[in-house]
Amino acid sequence: MTITDNLRTSLLKTRSDTEKICSPLQIEDYVVQPIVDVSPPKWHLGHTTWFFEEFILSKHAQGYKRFHPEYAYVFNSYYESVGKRVIRTNRGNLSRPTVKEVYKYRDYVTSNLQFFLEKNQDPKIRKLVEIGIHHEKQHQELLLTDIKYILGNNPLFPKYNDTFIENSVFEEIQSYSTVNEGVYEIGYSGNDFCYDNEYGKHKVFLKEYAISNKLVTNKEYLEFIENDGYKDSLLWHAEGWDWIQKEKIKTPLYWYKIDKKYYQYTLQGLVPLNTKAPVTHLSYYEAFAFSQWKGERLPTEFEWEIAQSFFKWGERWEWTESAYSPYPNYKKAPGALGEYNGKFMVNQKVLRGGSVATPQNHTRATYRNFFHPHLRWQFTGLRLVKDI
Amino acid sequence: MTITDNLRTSLLKTRSDTEKICSPLQIEDYVVQPIVDVSPPKWHLGHTTWFFEEFILSKHAQGYKRFHPEYAYVFNSYYESVGKRVIRTNRGNLSRPTVKEVYKYRDYVTSNLQFFLEKNQDPKIRKLVEIGIHHEKQHQELLLTDIKYILGNNPLFPKYNDTFIENSVFEEIQSYSTVNEGVYEIGYSGNDFCYDNEYGKHKVFLKEYAISNKLVTNKEYLEFIENDGYKDSLLWHAEGWDWIQKEKIKTPLYWYKIDKKYYQYTLQGLVPLNTKAPVTHLSYYEAFAFSQWKGERLPTEFEWEIAQSFFKWGERWEWTESAYSPYPNYKKAPGALGEYNGKFMVNQKVLRGGSVATPQNHTRATYRNFFHPHLRWQFTGLRLVKDI
Amino acid sequence: MTITDNLRTSLLKTRSDTEKICSPLQIEDYVVQPIVDVSPPKWHLGHTTWFFEEFILSKHAQGYKRFHPEYAYVFNSYYESVGKRVIRTNRGNLSRPTVKEVYKYRDYVTSNLQFFLEKNQDPKIRKLVEIGIHHEKQHQELLLTDIKYILGNNPLFPKYNDTFIENSVFEEIQSYSTVNEGVYEIGYSGNDFCYDNEYGKHKVFLKEYAISNKLVTNKEYLEFIENDGYKDSLLWHAEGWDWIQKEKIKTPLYWYKIDKKYYQYTLQGLVPLNTKAPVTHLSYYEAFAFSQWKGERLPTEFEWEIAQSFFKWGERWEWTESAYSPYPNYKKAPGALGEYNGKFMVNQKVLRGGSVATPQNHTRATYRNFFHPHLRWQFTGLRLVKDI
Amino acid sequence: MTITDNLRTSLLKTRSDTEKICSPLQIEDYVVQPIVDVSPPKWHLGHTTWFFEEFILSKHAQGYKRFHPEYAYVFNSYYESVGKRVIRTNRGNLSRPTVKEVYKYRDYVTSNLQFFLEKNQDPKIRKLVEIGIHHEKQHQELLLTDIKYILGNNPLFPKYNDTFIENSVFEEIQSYSTVNEGVYEIGYSGNDFCYDNEYGKHKVFLKEYAISNKLVTNKEYLEFIENDGYKDSLLWHAEGWDWIQKEKIKTPLYWYKIDKKYYQYTLQGLVPLNTKAPVTHLSYYEAFAFSQWKGERLPTEFEWEIAQSFFKWGERWEWTESAYSPYPNYKKAPGALGEYNGKFMVNQKVLRGGSVATPQNHTRATYRNFFHPHLRWQFTGLRLVKDI
Repeated sequence: MTITDNLRTSLLKTRSDTEKICSPLQIEDYVVQPIVDVSPPKWHLGHTTWFFEEFILSKHAQGYKRFHPEYAYVFNSYYESVGKRVIRTNRGNLSRPTVKEVYKYRDYVTSNLQFFLEKNQDPKIRKLVEIGIHHEKQHQELLLTDIKYILGNNPLFPKYNDTFIENSVFEEIQSYSTVNEGVYEIGYSGNDFCYDNEYGKHKVFLKEYAISNKLVTNKEYLEFIENDGYKDSLLWHAEGWDWIQKEKIKTPLYWYKIDKKYYQYTLQGLVPLNTKAPVTHLSYYEAFAFSQWKGERLPTEFEWEIAQSFFKWGERWEWTESAYSPYPNYKKAPGALGEYNGKFMVNQKVLRGGSVATPQNHTRATYRNFFHPHLRWQFTGLRLVKDI
Repeated sequence: MTITDNLRTSLLKTRSDTEKICSPLQIEDYVVQPIVDVSPPKWHLGHTTWFFEEFILSKHAQGYKRFHPEYAYVFNSYYESVGKRVIRTNRGNLSRPTVKEVYKYRDYVTSNLQFFLEKNQDPKIRKLVEIGIHHEKQHQELLLTDIKYILGNNPLFPKYNDTFIENSVFEEIQSYSTVNEGVYEIGYSGNDFCYDNEYGKHKVFLKEYAISNKLVTNKEYLEFIENDGYKDSLLWHAEGWDWIQKEKIKTPLYWYKIDKKYYQYTLQGLVPLNTKAPVTHLSYYEAFAFSQWKGERLPTEFEWEIAQSFFKWGERWEWTESAYSPYPNYKKAPGALGEYNGKFMVNQKVLRGGSVATPQNHTRATYRNFFHPHLRWQFTGLRLVKDI
Repeated sequence: MTITDNLRTSLLKTRSDTEKICSPLQIEDYVVQPIVDVSPPKWHLGHTTWFFEEFILSKHAQGYKRFHPEYAYVFNSYYESVGKRVIRTNRGNLSRPTVKEVYKYRDYVTSNLQFFLEKNQDPKIRKLVEIGIHHEKQHQELLLTDIKYILGNNPLFPKYNDTFIENSVFEEIQSYSTVNEGVYEIGYSGNDFCYDNEYGKHKVFLKEYAISNKLVTNKEYLEFIENDGYKDSLLWHAEGWDWIQKEKIKTPLYWYKIDKKYYQYTLQGLVPLNTKAPVTHLSYYEAFAFSQWKGERLPTEFEWEIAQSFFKWGERWEWTESAYSPYPNYKKAPGALGEYNGKFMVNQKVLRGGSVATPQNHTRATYRNFFHPHLRWQFTGLRLVKDI
Repeated sequence: MTITDNLRTSLLKTRSDTEKICSPLQIEDYVVQPIVDVSPPKWHLGHTTWFFEEFILSKHAQGYKRFHPEYAYVFNSYYESVGKRVIRTNRGNLSRPTVKEVYKYRDYVTSNLQFFLEKNQDPKIRKLVEIGIHHEKQHQELLLTDIKYILGNNPLFPKYNDTFIENSVFEEIQSYSTVNEGVYEIGYSGNDFCYDNEYGKHKVFLKEYAISNKLVTNKEYLEFIENDGYKDSLLWHAEGWDWIQKEKIKTPLYWYKIDKKYYQYTLQGLVPLNTKAPVTHLSYYEAFAFSQWKGERLPTEFEWEIAQSFFKWGERWEWTESAYSPYPNYKKAPGALGEYNGKFMVNQKVLRGGSVATPQNHTRATYRNFFHPHLRWQFTGLRLVKDI
């Protein structure tokens, strides 16, 4: 089996995994966009396909005929340098192309790509396919959380399926691992795939700190709520405080108080709050306020990366105190692919780890996810750090 | 055949007509809401059903069991006095209930209603059914124009079907009929169904005026555009002028200029502008500015009603100069049904006539439709009047 | 004394009256614009001056030199056809020209105008001066209500002065005068000044009705509040209901409940609510809802005009049921002066009468004032009508 | 002379300096608030006074009587924990208290404070006074830039005075100083005053870099404009790109192109653009895009601090790449004073240096200023760094 065979296998598995995520959906679920941050599942299916068509087939596969002349317009997300695009708030206004047509589009592009890869062994192309695969895996994660948002904000609370487990309970006793003061190395340096924002392996100086082996649980977060954590302005950033006032936020997303008891919407439907499970669907503002209330703090992304071998992670994306910034010597790729990461490096916070929605083998210790501080529809959580 | 048989026939035909309007749709088309004024087709199907369930079955049919406890919340439109409702801007966020479930809901309510009407001959109930039928017919019209908006604002410009004719050409020479000064009677006084806003037959005094036998055509409106009608502030109401600046409006809705030629989106798809057809999809502001530019004016609703026997109408809803106000002695029905008309009697303009989207026998000479002055997604048009 | 002398006297008195209204102000009070509908007093002083400069001196007085080249831009209100203007929401951002400079501008224009009128007896010019005088009188009314808004929304509640009486008590017993069904004449037909919107004397047909001799009082309105009038959606227009929810409106403007007792801010400062005085600072929505609650209704502007000799009026602008529309044969003046009235004839309600803020001799039985239905900062009130 | 004498001298000088900044103003200039980020000068005068009243006199000076019971409400800026406050967007709506009254308030508080300090030598109080002085100095800077905004956005372009020099030309040849890779110490460790956000002296690891001795000039920035820097999306952050599209931004703030020539509004009025002067009134987005276009980058705040002895600084606040975050072991003060810095540590960028508006001796090498990335009304500029 050649390397290209591996790539093809990986491509086909990824394409098929995306569709598997959608298998429990009704056609109607593919179409809606309840908030600007959520995209219709149909759009994810088309956009990940367009990515291969735009950056590989249309540029490198001689004689390739685009599936439809308007799809580039419909399925471009934010790449300013490759032409006009449906603005993000309007994705949920498009009933066409239909779900069926989008699946046809997927098949068409996947087949063409397979055929093209059989004849083309150029490492530059293989690199692009690899990016396309990882791009699609990233969208798998978004797809699942967008589906959760679509179903979980419907007044009928439909379940996604009966098997998806969001909340695994981590029974270990809490303890803190200490990391000594010193100079450490940060960033990716292996030979596998990583994003451009992880490159630039570089040194950082860290003070001594101690990091928890456990994520904060629903039980602990409930104490914060019941001790009026959402009412004490001194715990909050000014923008966080304004945000909870304006949006009337009093709990994490998907929590519902019915007859004095808390429930949470999960992909298996509405269930009583599992107090032992790690808290999730928090904004950075809430994670920060909680840490203030505890008298501890969030780790920086460097502290997290250096300490990550001391604890189990991967169930929740973990908010860090770090703003999303370029590493030293960060260079973005030329042209449209350079729009992947660099242009988002302002006003966002880094999350480290991975979540129950992250595809297998997609994350790693150096992976940097990032979101605006008020966003909560990902499976976000937090882990505390103490200064010594 | 009893009167009740007639009512049942009418009910079943209306229920079935609504569904026929939807027959060319893909499931995805049922779900989206591109602007607040447009409702998802699925919602129309459910809402017209809820109306029968809420006001007849749940109140009068002993032992009736609602199809689903949450549907009242999902499908209430604006009846404040019967409980909470999904706010109008959020209708397009709901993927559930599915289209299939909504059709089941329709069948369930229609069957129950039929069964109930077999045993119940109470004239009060019959009156309510009649209102429900007319309510559903009004929604048929909205349904069709909402579908046009959903498809016509999609970048792929899908057609609705190949047979729906929007533009019939009226070849007669234009002429003006004169109505003499005098006292005239306005309002409905027959025995058939009419809305509460048409009652209160009353006298009005009219000055002499002359009214055109023809609607304004696309050709005439094109002249207005080409003579910079959209650039001369003196032709416009202040609010109309601000609106065209803000929304960058330069033509009626659904007009597209491609390579210096005008096209219009119709239910049969994008076609070259038919210059002989009556202009449509205009706001009141545009109709008014056009009339100013012509040196003529829009009729009042009274002038229209008195003169309507002199000309052919029914293809376009015709903007009038009249604000939507109560007739003398107007009384709204007690309770929720009183929310039907009266509460909208401010800031809206009356339209008279009917349109290609109006169900057969649904409109009449005294029928008063009404919309906010900036709205254009109905098949609106205009007819001119001259003072003498 | 010639007619021109009269005009000059009237001009000078009007110019001086405007300044008298401002005499109790601090310089700071001249500058601010707390809501878009309110203009800074300084702006009123300049705008009424610009009107004379723009439409008379700059066009007709040979050799006239504008006081400042930028003032036309600063002080134009809404005349689109005479050039660019500071948009309305920005008037309160301008600290310059200073109040002192604006007074100099006033003096300069008044002097030039006087000098010009001495030599110019052209009736067309005299007509323009007359319009300018009436324009300024209209602004006197706005000036006073804008001042009230500026002071009355300041947390320190400063008084305007100690002498301005807003609330005269009308002790008569309430009674209703009946007007017989018939054709009546509406509109102005004398030889004195009136606005273009009053012309076009014309006939209307009225049904029999009975109109109250008294304005609704604070006492009656308090009963409406205490009987949950603001909580019963069935009393309200849909847009009125949405507006009171959104703006959290529970009383007329300037009412404050302190320790369970009602106070009202008046130009003499904060005082206990005078229950015998006519209610004021109501929107049309509130006036309408009150009338619904009483089981009566607002008069149309025609009913008001025909009946006005039967009652005392002039203390409150009275909301009518009539939308602001053109009279038959309404013609607006050519050019910029045509922007005075006609372009506002949509989405507004007619008020009839006059108020404690109206300059002497400024209003008359045919005078038509108009505001958007949600506005409350004028001295608005209401009078009820019964059908018979 | 005792230490307390020094403090008193410093207090009085600061109080008097604030008023000197206002001496060229007309009363009207004290009142307006053209954008939310700018506060009326009157408000700065009152707020800096309230700070002393609230945190020192009312809490520690026995028998102290507040000047006015409502001023705490009027002049509180953002201290959530000391009670209600006028929301920031409304500061420009308040004509009262008048400027004269605010100056009386200043005198009253300054006198009381002087008197209080004569008898009270408690170091804790002295610390609070010191904070109050530095707080007022910070406001002096804002005051001057707010005044510039108020005058510079007035269509009459009034000058502030004839003497304030914004643009000193730095004639030296550009060169880059190299800093070696290594561990460096960051943060304040002296005995004078500094803010809590500078404490926590700590080590950072820096890669080798070279930093320019000169700020970027207007000439260089003009080249960026003329080479379509504002039109190339690849140079910009996504949020920066959206911002320049939405706000139609094509130059730094205060630049005006008149007859193909560039002018800039300065405190001395509108003058031809000085191409040799350092560019100013840039957002972070623009500074970043410029650096991308040059193929260089902004320094981090740490790089700036370590290298600052190699170049002249203090004329422009310099944007850095660093997000505003807490230093290791950062602890905010308990209670309201803890709201000073920490609660703003999200979504803001650090600026280093100082500007022509910074009071003498107010800034230092470790001083951290911070603003949202789109803000431009401060005297912001940029200095470039190269990787080696």
